[in-house]
Amino acid sequence: LGPFAELLNYRFSVPALNGREVPGKVFVKDALQLTGVEMSYNCFPPGFSMPFLHAHRDNEEVYLFLSGQGEFMVDGEAFAVSEGSVVRVAPGGSRAYRNTGEAPMYFIVLQVKHGSEPASGIADGVPMGKPEWPAG
Amino acid sequence: LGPFAELLNYRFSVPALNGREVPGKVFVKDALQLTGVEMSYNCFPPGFSMPFLHAHRDNEEVYLFLSGQGEFMVDGEAFAVSEGSVVRVAPGGSRAYRNTGEAPMYFIVLQVKHGSEPASGIADGVPMGKPEWPAG
Repeated sequence: LGPFAELLNYRFSVPALNGREVPGKVFVKDALQLTGVEMSYNCFPPGFSMPFLHAHRDNEEVYLFLSGQGEFMVDGEAFAVSEGSVVRVAPGGSRAYRNTGEAPMYFIVLQVKHGSEPASGIADGVPMGKPEWPAG
Repeated sequence: LGPFAELLNYRFSVPALNGREVPGKVFVKDALQLTGVEMSYNCFPPGFSMPFLHAHRDNEEVYLFLSGQGEFMVDGEAFAVSEGSVVRVAPGGSRAYRNTGEAPMYFIVLQVKHGSEPASGIADGVPMGKPEWPAG
């Protein structure tokens, strides 16, 4: 991960993201020791487009757009995406995306096992005691 | 989801997030028809703290901090978080978090089934043809 990442035990920072300087694509599953999701941090420069469509075998994908302006295509239908846009694509969907703006387009991509069905909402949570925050 | 969300087929927008106006917590698994991950959009106002610690039964959690300044605690250890910070917590970890800054703290929380082990990196992808973008 080189300059992109700082690994600190169970937590992980992407300092370059703060400066909007993450180029390309950085997968973080191994660095974060994730067991239920693959994640990548992505940056497309202005004018950059995925050169090919792709689908997936088993993984559901979720795209979280953080900044910039782009276009997303699924099964031939294109639509605009920008900060706050979230796109879920089933494994078989044929997808591509591109930066249509003047600034870098930043987004996070999740890959999870389609149909693994984690418990929803707060159903999986177990309440514990009151936190004791260190004095600041 | 009321004013927070706009559901359009396989895609989902959180327009209020663009204006930094999402209050509280909004779960989106059902609206997005997600099958492998529960997701929530969260906003803590300045001074707000999770009132109790919690753990999980089966779900691995990932916290993606989008803006603001905060503190995160896992198993009694507290550390700072801000834009770009990512925190992965195993199901048994006892966790809480709080906004320690002057601005709202925005973050996304993922819940996935611990140990569901989706294929990593690009291993699950299936390349397809070249996208034909509509003329703009």
